[in-house]
Amino acid sequence: MRHERRADFPLERVRQFLEPGPVVLVSSQWRGERDIMTMGWHMVVDFAPSLLACVIASGNHTHELVRRSRECVINLPTFALIDTVVGIGNTSGADIDKFDHFGLTAQEGTLVKAPLIAECHASFECRLHDDALVARYGLFVWEVVKAHVAPSPKVPQTIHYRGDGQFMVSGRQVSRRSAFRPEMLP
Amino acid sequence: MRHERRADFPLERVRQFLEPGPVVLVSSQWRGERDIMTMGWHMVVDFAPSLLACVIASGNHTHELVRRSRECVINLPTFALIDTVVGIGNTSGADIDKFDHFGLTAQEGTLVKAPLIAECHASFECRLHDDALVARYGLFVWEVVKAHVAPSPKVPQTIHYRGDGQFMVSGRQVSRRSAFRPEMLP
Repeated sequence: MRHERRADFPLERVRQFLEPGPVVLVSSQWRGERDIMTMGWHMVVDFAPSLLACVIASGNHTHELVRRSRECVINLPTFALIDTVVGIGNTSGADIDKFDHFGLTAQEGTLVKAPLIAECHASFECRLHDDALVARYGLFVWEVVKAHVAPSPKVPQTIHYRGDGQFMVSGRQVSRRSAFRPEMLP
Repeated sequence: MRHERRADFPLERVRQFLEPGPVVLVSSQWRGERDIMTMGWHMVVDFAPSLLACVIASGNHTHELVRRSRECVINLPTFALIDTVVGIGNTSGADIDKFDHFGLTAQEGTLVKAPLIAECHASFECRLHDDALVARYGLFVWEVVKAHVAPSPKVPQTIHYRGDGQFMVSGRQVSRRSAFRPEMLP
């Protein structure tokens, strides 16, 4: 299940994995302590620079680690990892080391100290770009500074959370490319 | 295709429709001018009050209408509307009235003046809650003040944008409710 050969990926195209709204795993590290959090509250903010926003409420162990380190990694799990994703969401990093507990591989990042999760389809190294709304909502704006993506499958099967323990699994692809004005396409 | 009998829906449960990441249609009105915008950059910020964030860049005609009126309606289209969604995303409200052009029904709201789109599965009336990051990123934080949802289907087939003219259609539902700690469920 581990993706050994994840490759560099263009930052301005990261949106193709996150805009559809999958659950992601946020990994972080601060002074030797590390954590993983399951997160569904995120959105794209810009293409270039590649900016993302997400909400990590102050009650989460991860909140303190990312606020202090000003870094994180946003990892994209596929359907194969659904039970790990649920387990991570239902435990606290204050009690356990989630990499050890869930048998996940911490991989060294290139530009951030937070660990990547090797078992995920993609990992996006992020630096804190704007903390103006952190105190009010736990709303962080990140810049993706490095992207690692498995070369296949091109379109991974992702999981999307509906609340109440219910998930939607990504379905079929439909192209409407021919209906787009050229300037709307990359 | 029009949903005549959309019913009131609990505000704290709105997240079940938006957290999975569907493309939405934002309708707005300011001084007799109205517009609709296709949008994929949004996220849940809180349950209660029901807060959402979204990015509406200043280049969009909708930006000016929502910034001035401090209101909008976030409408949830299903797969049946995909070509309308694409058409709305590839035209500008500076040139056409999108309700007329795309044959959509403007329905009166309860608490906001912006029109609801009757053909959508759900419509969420929103009031501007926080404009701190509007100038910097076009990032609006909204409070959902009224929700209208079609009683069936319970789980509508939604469309999710990947960029480059490519969409993902929502797939099957999977429950992991039994794996959740009781306090993680509503």
